[in-house]
Amino acid sequence: MHEISGSIISRIEDLAEERGLKLKAMLVGSAARNTWLAGDHDLDIFLGMPSNADLGSAMEIARLVAPDHEEKYAEHPYVHARVDGFEVDLVPCYLVPDASRLRSAVDRTPFHTEYVARRIVGLEDDVLLLKQFMKGIDVYGSELKVGGFSGYLAELLVLFFGSFQRVLQAASSWRPGEFLDLEGLGKEEHEEPLVVVDPVDPRRNVAAALTLDKMLQFSAASRCFLAEPSLDFFFPDPVAPLSDDELAAQINERKSLLILVDFQAPAVVEDVLFPQLRKAEESVKALLERYGFRLLRSDVASYRDRAAILIEMEVWELSRVCRRCGPPVWEAAHQSRFLAAHPRPLSGPYIADGRALVETARKYTRAEDLLAAEIGNLSLGRHLSSAVRSGHNIYVGFELASIKDEDFRIFLARYFQARNRVC
Amino acid sequence: MHEISGSIISRIEDLAEERGLKLKAMLVGSAARNTWLAGDHDLDIFLGMPSNADLGSAMEIARLVAPDHEEKYAEHPYVHARVDGFEVDLVPCYLVPDASRLRSAVDRTPFHTEYVARRIVGLEDDVLLLKQFMKGIDVYGSELKVGGFSGYLAELLVLFFGSFQRVLQAASSWRPGEFLDLEGLGKEEHEEPLVVVDPVDPRRNVAAALTLDKMLQFSAASRCFLAEPSLDFFFPDPVAPLSDDELAAQINERKSLLILVDFQAPAVVEDVLFPQLRKAEESVKALLERYGFRLLRSDVASYRDRAAILIEMEVWELSRVCRRCGPPVWEAAHQSRFLAAHPRPLSGPYIADGRALVETARKYTRAEDLLAAEIGNLSLGRHLSSAVRSGHNIYVGFELASIKDEDFRIFLARYFQARNRVC
Repeated sequence: MHEISGSIISRIEDLAEERGLKLKAMLVGSAARNTWLAGDHDLDIFLGMPSNADLGSAMEIARLVAPDHEEKYAEHPYVHARVDGFEVDLVPCYLVPDASRLRSAVDRTPFHTEYVARRIVGLEDDVLLLKQFMKGIDVYGSELKVGGFSGYLAELLVLFFGSFQRVLQAASSWRPGEFLDLEGLGKEEHEEPLVVVDPVDPRRNVAAALTLDKMLQFSAASRCFLAEPSLDFFFPDPVAPLSDDELAAQINERKSLLILVDFQAPAVVEDVLFPQLRKAEESVKALLERYGFRLLRSDVASYRDRAAILIEMEVWELSRVCRRCGPPVWEAAHQSRFLAAHPRPLSGPYIADGRALVETARKYTRAEDLLAAEIGNLSLGRHLSSAVRSGHNIYVGFELASIKDEDFRIFLARYFQARNRVC
Repeated sequence: MHEISGSIISRIEDLAEERGLKLKAMLVGSAARNTWLAGDHDLDIFLGMPSNADLGSAMEIARLVAPDHEEKYAEHPYVHARVDGFEVDLVPCYLVPDASRLRSAVDRTPFHTEYVARRIVGLEDDVLLLKQFMKGIDVYGSELKVGGFSGYLAELLVLFFGSFQRVLQAASSWRPGEFLDLEGLGKEEHEEPLVVVDPVDPRRNVAAALTLDKMLQFSAASRCFLAEPSLDFFFPDPVAPLSDDELAAQINERKSLLILVDFQAPAVVEDVLFPQLRKAEESVKALLERYGFRLLRSDVASYRDRAAILIEMEVWELSRVCRRCGPPVWEAAHQSRFLAAHPRPLSGPYIADGRALVETARKYTRAEDLLAAEIGNLSLGRHLSSAVRSGHNIYVGFELASIKDEDFRIFLARYFQARNRVC
């Protein structure tokens, strides 16, 4: 890896010199710190330019270095390529004097590498252990789909506490509101459950993307591991896709109602897709509860080119008759309007608890009917609304078995298992 | 009626004189005030004795006056008889100097008669109209089954406001907390929604037995009547017993689940039975809701020698799987105990919203199963607990049609109609 990155960096510097450009090529990320874990983002090579330069010229060089590439776009464009079996990102950035004076979010990365690389020497194995532990218990990765720990955050935890073991010991008693400040520079107030002040940019919380539940999954798993250490924490058995028979058994055992809304995934990256899916999940839950149904649990998934919201109902059928509560009896004008709005109730109007009530017919007595009729009217976020409106399937109960995709079946297996390390 | 009461009173006084007893016989109640309405309690003749006398000697005389009688018991024993087609109560009481120095609740009645009789002259028809109006809209009667207006309360309202019409005008804008004090003597604080200070015993609220809903039914009906007067208010069409076909139609239209718990009524008067039935109804509702079911409405009834609790369910079926929420993750000892209590969950343990959760199997997925299994363990009050335990039937849905009793069918018809006069 270092050989390849060395040769790429030379190539970049040669091309820059040919063009008389002031450009500094740097290996950053875990590869640069010897904390690279299989499956981590591979090689990150940054092309640093002065703050007043045009990043376009750096992009040109990146394109030449890796002729067989694709161009991607975060805050700025960058180049992604496969070189000798490694995934390589070539990312133009600005060289700023310090990390608090960024022009772009990626400008911070070289400072992280610089901060960690010098200090982590001798602790690389602890970082690797911690990352693999986090991976094994499913809390590794700061992308929004996961909401877990970034590699940089894992490194800072090792630096702060001194070893893999000590990180776990500390995490064992975490509760929301933990505050870790390596350099004693933190000033800002943060709302997040874990705050780790970025030593290169003290206003920033390195753990900002970490959700409460992932933080506590790590805490609980740390406690379990210290009580009874095992390799399983690092390398758990993979979850097998759920078979049709297993699905039937789950349905029979749980006697709940499963509803899946499935549609074409919009062409956006996961960091855009998943927050929208979660928002859509919340809208669907709110709709069902507003109409009187009750959810047990729900989750969202993407597989192949599809996206899906899985809803499990605790109450999926309601009586047709329902109560509508009017104003207090002594508010005569309100009451007249209320009664006029319900001219032919099934029962009533009658007075109960000081108010006029009528009993009328509910429009939807089953959750799946409500969902089928109303999902098109929900505001599901920009990309999802049009995806759902241009076509979706609703699967109920064992109809889910008609989706044969392996990733989807693994998602289902994990949904039913729903197991974290707690003890 | 006056002829009969006159002759009974003479008879009593003769017998008292023969025995040398100091005894004053009095016609009390609505018959004495010319405000007697068909269906009111018929003739109340009180046998007043000095405070230091023995009421037993008055009872002896009462027994002699009406040889064909039965003896009843409220606070003290009294005699009930039929004389020339009238129901007559012969009630021994103490003659106390004023109504605030009672020895027994019945001692107050002669004071009521005295207070009203002199003042009501010329307003008798207004009282009769008001009582029949109250009867027609189903708020007349201070017994606990009804919780409505007593005859004495109706009389005081006419005295206070001056006419039937003015009572209705005032009641039209009633709200909880009305306070009426004819003599300006009221001092006590009362909790009840309507307070009418008893002019002969100012600590007492004459409307103490009136429920909020009966008060407001009267208020709403007054408003409707004044807007659009009609004889129907006084003499509504009687409610016809519900036929089997009508029951089937209701079930089909409402698509709810009806459950009836039916048992031998204990041998107690309605004023004892109904508060216990209502308490039992509350216990049954609380049981169903504690287990996750949802009620639409319920009611209690007695017919023949039976008593029954009718429950209409909005949610009667739940998933077998249910969530059990444990302590916050950082409460390690609590969490261990929680997990030990749920060793083999259907799903989990997993962490959500900062807590450990498991999904376990519910014991009862249907409301009727829960009720059948647990009703014997509810504390339903002294008389009902043993009645229910010594045998009860649970009817579900159309099984109710197997009860052919006409009073029960009228109760069902009224239950489904559930209509008060509101506009």
